[in-house]
Amino acid sequence: MQATRTTGFIALPVKFLRELHEALPADAVLTSAEDLLRYGSDETENLSFPPQVVVRPRTTDEVARTVRLCFNHAIPVTPIGARTGLSGGALSIKGGVGLALDRMNAITEIDERNLQVTVEPGVITQVLQEAVAAKGLYYPPDPGSRGSCTIGGNLAENAGGPRAVKYGVTRDFVLNLQVVLPNGDVIWTGANTLKNATGYDLTRLIVGSEGTLGVITKAVLRLVPLPKETRLMLVPFRDERKACEAVAAVFRAGITPSAMEFMERDAIDWTLRFVEGVNVAIADDTRAHLLVEVDGNHADALMRDCEAIMEVMEHFECQEVLFAETPAEKDALWKMRRRVGEAVKSNSIYKEEDTVVPRYALPDLLAKVKEVGGRHGFRSVCYGHAGDGNLHVNIIKGDMPDAKWQDELPVAIREIFEYTVSVGGTLSGEHGIGLVQRPYMDIAFNSVQIAIMRGIKKVFDPQGIMNPGKVLP
Amino acid sequence: MQATRTTGFIALPVKFLRELHEALPADAVLTSAEDLLRYGSDETENLSFPPQVVVRPRTTDEVARTVRLCFNHAIPVTPIGARTGLSGGALSIKGGVGLALDRMNAITEIDERNLQVTVEPGVITQVLQEAVAAKGLYYPPDPGSRGSCTIGGNLAENAGGPRAVKYGVTRDFVLNLQVVLPNGDVIWTGANTLKNATGYDLTRLIVGSEGTLGVITKAVLRLVPLPKETRLMLVPFRDERKACEAVAAVFRAGITPSAMEFMERDAIDWTLRFVEGVNVAIADDTRAHLLVEVDGNHADALMRDCEAIMEVMEHFECQEVLFAETPAEKDALWKMRRRVGEAVKSNSIYKEEDTVVPRYALPDLLAKVKEVGGRHGFRSVCYGHAGDGNLHVNIIKGDMPDAKWQDELPVAIREIFEYTVSVGGTLSGEHGIGLVQRPYMDIAFNSVQIAIMRGIKKVFDPQGIMNPGKVLP
Repeated sequence: MQATRTTGFIALPVKFLRELHEALPADAVLTSAEDLLRYGSDETENLSFPPQVVVRPRTTDEVARTVRLCFNHAIPVTPIGARTGLSGGALSIKGGVGLALDRMNAITEIDERNLQVTVEPGVITQVLQEAVAAKGLYYPPDPGSRGSCTIGGNLAENAGGPRAVKYGVTRDFVLNLQVVLPNGDVIWTGANTLKNATGYDLTRLIVGSEGTLGVITKAVLRLVPLPKETRLMLVPFRDERKACEAVAAVFRAGITPSAMEFMERDAIDWTLRFVEGVNVAIADDTRAHLLVEVDGNHADALMRDCEAIMEVMEHFECQEVLFAETPAEKDALWKMRRRVGEAVKSNSIYKEEDTVVPRYALPDLLAKVKEVGGRHGFRSVCYGHAGDGNLHVNIIKGDMPDAKWQDELPVAIREIFEYTVSVGGTLSGEHGIGLVQRPYMDIAFNSVQIAIMRGIKKVFDPQGIMNPGKVLP
Repeated sequence: MQATRTTGFIALPVKFLRELHEALPADAVLTSAEDLLRYGSDETENLSFPPQVVVRPRTTDEVARTVRLCFNHAIPVTPIGARTGLSGGALSIKGGVGLALDRMNAITEIDERNLQVTVEPGVITQVLQEAVAAKGLYYPPDPGSRGSCTIGGNLAENAGGPRAVKYGVTRDFVLNLQVVLPNGDVIWTGANTLKNATGYDLTRLIVGSEGTLGVITKAVLRLVPLPKETRLMLVPFRDERKACEAVAAVFRAGITPSAMEFMERDAIDWTLRFVEGVNVAIADDTRAHLLVEVDGNHADALMRDCEAIMEVMEHFECQEVLFAETPAEKDALWKMRRRVGEAVKSNSIYKEEDTVVPRYALPDLLAKVKEVGGRHGFRSVCYGHAGDGNLHVNIIKGDMPDAKWQDELPVAIREIFEYTVSVGGTLSGEHGIGLVQRPYMDIAFNSVQIAIMRGIKKVFDPQGIMNPGKVLP
């Protein structure tokens, strides 16, 4: 099943390589087979597409010099972050230069007066969160991989996570980006301001463009005050559908939780089985859980919110609610939620989808996934950000024969995506399209929409050298 | 001073007009001089640029038919909303068709289960706010002209208003847009979901593009639960600079107000003098006010927030704080704030700028405005959204001779904008560039950035018929 491609590309021109070595410090250019292999995979299934040379710049200027050389020689260049991506966006599928941003990992400035932070793309998301938390500030976007993923990748994929339901996604925290364009020019996309009505929104055009329009080399991000208190509860349900319906009802009751996560029974079972240090007693007839968090500055107000949420949950026949009383208990519940994906992945070949729908459509989407799976003979494990209508669907290969897996999986995925789009949803909520969802783009977009996207790509990258073969079909 | 242009265009082709009449209901095509004049101005200074024919469609299909005819005949077409714009974005400066969206004013659906609303572009912002409030929901973007401006214009200009400081601007509440492209094709830009990492963000590319990339014919907007309580206070200061500095300190104290408005002494004086029904006693030595609002569901928590805000304010030597106790008192304070612009406008020829900077730079920007004004002999009245660093600068002509006003004003504005950009700010926070700020775009963007914006414009509108002469220099 492993798709590897280490050969088959025309060798890079000697002149290009010579100029590259001249333009950069010696330790910034890697060519060993081991290095190429290392930078040739991410967390997307078991794909491996090594670049022909890896460049690890330390500065914007080194990025610009590298990209300009690629432009001059028409060499593909693929930006690479922490390689935690789930759609294959950082794979060098056309060979060429793998541009690894991991050494550009400085937090340049935490501006406490303006609640802004300037970072390089290689800063690990959790490192940023902890650095600003130490000053009483909060950067809410919070992907599952926050301990290893980097801001550059979060920006490229418009990452979300559990706190998006209250605070918004990565896009909503970006003020201004420094970008190296595919010809090596360097621009800033906007201004360091909360409001901006000055020209086209290049900032948000770059966010989520998955490295196909340029290389992000610096980001000015918005921060908010760190909430002083959080409350967390795990709510079991006998009926998955009622769990999903309860989500919409909480918002209708006037409360915006800071997280509202869904896990079906299997998701928790797999986690309890395969992740160490998580112990939660689950009744035999529990079919799903909601993990609900509220945050704010006033403990008593949060308790009243929790009571109101409980009241809503009871209308949907929840079982006994588990309150996390201590930081350790909170950590344990979050660990269980964050590591579902890992538990699934370590135990079977699988295919993960990142479907997203208007939140009230979640129970129908879940039912559809099970119905499609039943017809094609797939098991699935579903969990995700119920508050956002963002359901991660893990389709499990288990002991299914390879031929059937390969033939029927794309058919089943297509059915799920077609349903998703039919109820106002789309293909990806936060993982991006990258390489592996490209075959399905025709479900979300018609030829007019795709032509506009292609046109935009061409404005930035007329030669098509920047992360080629991604996003657009 | 009035810049009018009713003649000078080549007459529209007879064939085009015949096809237009055939394609649309009789009452959708207006050609009387009175109608042309009416649709030829907005709230930008005293400019008048009537279109050669006004089309008032009722449906997306009628918009598409109109635009397709304009495309076939290469006729300029300028989308027109409620004509409350402050940058001249809706003026038909190249003649052609004025496409008035005011009859497309249906609230198509309030989706209480998903907290979404689908609207046509001609819905008045306040009408939308009241319709969703009746169902316990909240649409926070809240421009000063909310009683007359429409959602289409808000989207085109990425409007903000006082609540943006907590909730974000129009951009942050848009999920999906139906757009008629400059060739008459109709697309949706995204999906009806809170998260979306599927292809380029066409939604946010359209928002703020001021009608230069297409005509918005439908919008799916995000709603939030309506906060149950608000508290409002007016805080006077002896020192404008200290008032501005207090703004940043409130956020540093961990509180995010739902509004944080700044008015310098003159702004309040003009309002008290020229707006009826506003009575606030102001001490002789008061130089500036902050109007601070907090909102939420818990009255006691809000009172504690107010106390914490007061404590911060006292560090910046505020004078006696006025709490609005009743809804009537709140309305009176908001009326005073909302009508400053009107008070200034009704009493002198003026030029309004919409500068925006990182919020801590506000006192320096204010000082700079006064310094530049002093050198060139201009008075100015400044007020705006201090929480966002968005300062509306009204430069007053008063009794200055016309020649001096016309010669020196652009020089002074350029100095102010250059300063704004030098501290990380930009030209417009929420009014847009439109016609009147175009000459200053070179201050915010270099030729590389402008070339990208031009390229994007050309992808959407190769003939340059859609709102020509706006935004891009």
